[in-house]
Amino acid sequence: MASHPYYPLEADIIGYSPNQTSVLELLVSAGGGCAALLGLTFAVASYVRPALRLADRIAILWFVLSGTLHCFFEGYFMIHHEHMASAQDLFGQLWKEYALSDSRYMTSDTLVLCMETMTVLLWGPLCFGVAYLTATRHSLRHPIQVMVCMSHLYGDTLYYATSLFDHYANGVAYCRPEEYYFWVYYFFMNFIWIVVPAYYLFVSIRTISSAMRAQQGSGEKRKYQ
Amino acid sequence: MASHPYYPLEADIIGYSPNQTSVLELLVSAGGGCAALLGLTFAVASYVRPALRLADRIAILWFVLSGTLHCFFEGYFMIHHEHMASAQDLFGQLWKEYALSDSRYMTSDTLVLCMETMTVLLWGPLCFGVAYLTATRHSLRHPIQVMVCMSHLYGDTLYYATSLFDHYANGVAYCRPEEYYFWVYYFFMNFIWIVVPAYYLFVSIRTISSAMRAQQGSGEKRKYQ
Repeated sequence: MASHPYYPLEADIIGYSPNQTSVLELLVSAGGGCAALLGLTFAVASYVRPALRLADRIAILWFVLSGTLHCFFEGYFMIHHEHMASAQDLFGQLWKEYALSDSRYMTSDTLVLCMETMTVLLWGPLCFGVAYLTATRHSLRHPIQVMVCMSHLYGDTLYYATSLFDHYANGVAYCRPEEYYFWVYYFFMNFIWIVVPAYYLFVSIRTISSAMRAQQGSGEKRKYQ
Repeated sequence: MASHPYYPLEADIIGYSPNQTSVLELLVSAGGGCAALLGLTFAVASYVRPALRLADRIAILWFVLSGTLHCFFEGYFMIHHEHMASAQDLFGQLWKEYALSDSRYMTSDTLVLCMETMTVLLWGPLCFGVAYLTATRHSLRHPIQVMVCMSHLYGDTLYYATSLFDHYANGVAYCRPEEYYFWVYYFFMNFIWIVVPAYYLFVSIRTISSAMRAQQGSGEKRKYQ
């Protein structure tokens, strides 16, 4: 019998100890933490930049939430990846719950670890950068926003692709067979980082394109004046 | 004794047959093909758009070369990944030579295959798109160029990171021990797709930022007129 609940059952996961906190309590803590972060960010942004459009404040919420998850929650994995299965602190237990849908987080999987390390060191800080550039209405906001959205879309697509390929072509499933884990944790949680980045990518491309057209137009005008 | 020259020697590579063409001949063919493509592209671009700046013509060369390698050379791998080791056509022999520096191209490695598939289907066509948008001086050129450059930088960094991690942390080297393969094929060939995309990313960010500043400036002016 396997000494852990992760799939594949023969995965080499050392020192597993079951979570001491209930799933409901973990999810409520995580949800509460996110809600507090979003509320605080919205309050600070509104206080510091009262003239900011609502759409920009919402963008700031998104990039602060992403940056926080990248730098801290995923940073936890980057640092503790070698002994995830025995963790009993909040982040550790959340990862152990999530990993029921993807055991690569319990096995220091090369792809997941390298991708997460890039996310923690590069895309997390860049998310905070976009939030700051949005708050200050800086001219670098949209090009950097395209970079961050591309990193989300690239990483997430590759994350989906590799585990689905291992599942269907190599017959190795990292997800437990219960539909809840596949659809809620693996599919839905990650899909958020497809849908929202795709939207912000679209917004940035449209904004940049219109600025480039305006500049070209005024260039033409100057030429013929 | 291993039945193939790839590392790790125990890698499961089926049906290997040595290249029938010499390395020199393969590299001259590849180099000649690239030179012909670049010459033709330059001639066509100069004929169709004689007013185009030299810098833009060079950018077109870069994105047409990248797009061609992505769609055709890497497309070859995407299609034939299951029987690479026995190939004797030009692309197949080139891959077999390159794989001396990274055997993951001989084993349908999950990460390499998924990443290459994204490259063939998404970034290759987008490269041609950037070349076209550059030739037509389209307002979408720079945002799409940021996307393509990010895909190069993300993919290449992850490509380096995963093989170095497997080498140094897991003790699995995919490269033959001779320094030529590591430095010339694995390091240098891929490093081109770090240096050049980093340059074009910088150019695009600078161009976009300046257009955004100009637009903000004219917006401010309108407001106070």
